[in-house]
Amino acid sequence: MDSFSELRRDIVSGEWVVVATGRARRPDEFAKAKKQKLKQSVQDCPFEISQSSPLVAYSKDSEGWWAQVVQNKYPAFSQPHDGEQVCPTVLKNGPYEWMRGKGYHEVVISRDHERNISRMSLEETELVVRSFQDRFLAIKQDKCIKYISVFQNHGKESGASIAHPHLQIVAVPVIPPDVESSLEGSNKYFKEHKECVHCVVICHELQKKERIIYENSEFVVVAPFASRSAFEMRIFPKKHRSNFEETGVKERESFSDSLLVSLAKLYKGLRDPDYNMFLHTAPTNNSDSGHYHWHIEILPKTAIWAGFEIGTGIEISTIAPETAAEFLKNIKVK
Amino acid sequence: MDSFSELRRDIVSGEWVVVATGRARRPDEFAKAKKQKLKQSVQDCPFEISQSSPLVAYSKDSEGWWAQVVQNKYPAFSQPHDGEQVCPTVLKNGPYEWMRGKGYHEVVISRDHERNISRMSLEETELVVRSFQDRFLAIKQDKCIKYISVFQNHGKESGASIAHPHLQIVAVPVIPPDVESSLEGSNKYFKEHKECVHCVVICHELQKKERIIYENSEFVVVAPFASRSAFEMRIFPKKHRSNFEETGVKERESFSDSLLVSLAKLYKGLRDPDYNMFLHTAPTNNSDSGHYHWHIEILPKTAIWAGFEIGTGIEISTIAPETAAEFLKNIKVK
Repeated sequence: MDSFSELRRDIVSGEWVVVATGRARRPDEFAKAKKQKLKQSVQDCPFEISQSSPLVAYSKDSEGWWAQVVQNKYPAFSQPHDGEQVCPTVLKNGPYEWMRGKGYHEVVISRDHERNISRMSLEETELVVRSFQDRFLAIKQDKCIKYISVFQNHGKESGASIAHPHLQIVAVPVIPPDVESSLEGSNKYFKEHKECVHCVVICHELQKKERIIYENSEFVVVAPFASRSAFEMRIFPKKHRSNFEETGVKERESFSDSLLVSLAKLYKGLRDPDYNMFLHTAPTNNSDSGHYHWHIEILPKTAIWAGFEIGTGIEISTIAPETAAEFLKNIKVK
Repeated sequence: MDSFSELRRDIVSGEWVVVATGRARRPDEFAKAKKQKLKQSVQDCPFEISQSSPLVAYSKDSEGWWAQVVQNKYPAFSQPHDGEQVCPTVLKNGPYEWMRGKGYHEVVISRDHERNISRMSLEETELVVRSFQDRFLAIKQDKCIKYISVFQNHGKESGASIAHPHLQIVAVPVIPPDVESSLEGSNKYFKEHKECVHCVVICHELQKKERIIYENSEFVVVAPFASRSAFEMRIFPKKHRSNFEETGVKERESFSDSLLVSLAKLYKGLRDPDYNMFLHTAPTNNSDSGHYHWHIEILPKTAIWAGFEIGTGIEISTIAPETAAEFLKNIKVK
């Protein structure tokens, strides 16, 4: 694999990405690429203003809240104001189809204005995870909801508009296209091989050790073979688990540790890069997705999605995942 | 359709987008959102330095070249240096698949350092179109190539790194995932309805006139029902045409006019916004894609693709395409 650029196929979605190693820079050069920082003083921060009636809130021992979830003030989806309880249905408009955008849009806020998960303690990280797990379980009760997306935009270039560390929860009444293609790929592989595709990947990676960034008792962090961006990381439960929200207490601690270590390695190794992070898990009301294996994807913002990526869907990573994994594995954070 | 936010389904790909009209701003407010401009003096411009042996070059009458195509100095794809003439094949690496990244990566440069297509004459625009059409026809002869992507990144936020107006051509040995899903959607619709889905859309839009931005004798510019971003525009030949590269002389003049007018309306109406533009056309070696209808997509960069979009594939447009079309239709550029 010494070619100038390689096409690599994602084993789940079947989609091609490009690893353009010919354009390669040294791993630490990516840290220098960082541009303007999103800055906001405590005085100007909308999350420092006392939030009215959080949906859930967790405290450390005797202190005030550490993690809470509130409704987004400018939601992309919300409950209809007319109190209509029926689920939205697909309607026609000429040759087209559309649907009312009923759903949920919430914000997970942690107490410290500066410290993101990358600089939290394990206890603090776990309270954040518990917050969105709890909301996941609550929103799941709404039978109109088909998928719950949990994600974080960190930094200006990743699309964040508020500097105070936060995650978002968006629940929608359809299965999103990228989730559908991930589910279809997983289902197809399962039917053909009688095995979970992610279990096969995890087993292969743990044997090869070429793309492992970190592991603990229950979770493993890998740089995927078909990386969508430089320094992409994926966090998987080692055992086959379809539904994130069913994570038990002990597993949650292990997951929180893997999340904290992954983000701390990014923070230290690449000097707090902007990134997008999201959860991929089974749809909320789907008993047929036992083949699926939930995971977290972390995509540092090292390049802009431009005309080629938007027009073709082929993403370009400018560092080989093997090089990125070696670099991140060696960043000491404990 | 007075709801806070709407989900709309793309009739070709079947994918959902969100039109979040509840967050709406007035059309002219999008112009104010523009941030830093990509500036580069003529002295520092790599495209002002005389290009060695252009692949094609066109002149206006007796003047020097106006449009030329050169090889990209930092290609994401190129021909193998070992002179290997065989097409790359899919290779195995454990459970994964990969392929050598053989292909083409070229740059279409127009002469003026400042004037993009939005401010060219019709004659000048047509020479740019002829340049990439010619290269398309030449690259198509390479039997290893499965798809040729032509695109433009205009402005810093769209991912452009060079200010001098240019387009890019990237030819790849696979069918890109987004092109495949567009082809599959078109094929499925054709099999079910015995009609081209884009012809149905064009006919419907020309009757309704709700989303038409511009039309001339052979081409029509519409704001798509399921807009992927605010002010998205698509340019279609009115007659059913699968392959862009087969565009005849008279049609090319009409196409160049529609391209020029579309970009001039954006330039004037939204004060030179950054945008990504790309061509979707039939694959180069596929006799089965007669159902497909080639077109141009123009996506102004009004927002950053963040965690929700990357994790779900659902894009959010913050202005209804009907409002955007009404606004752009009324911008006078001739």
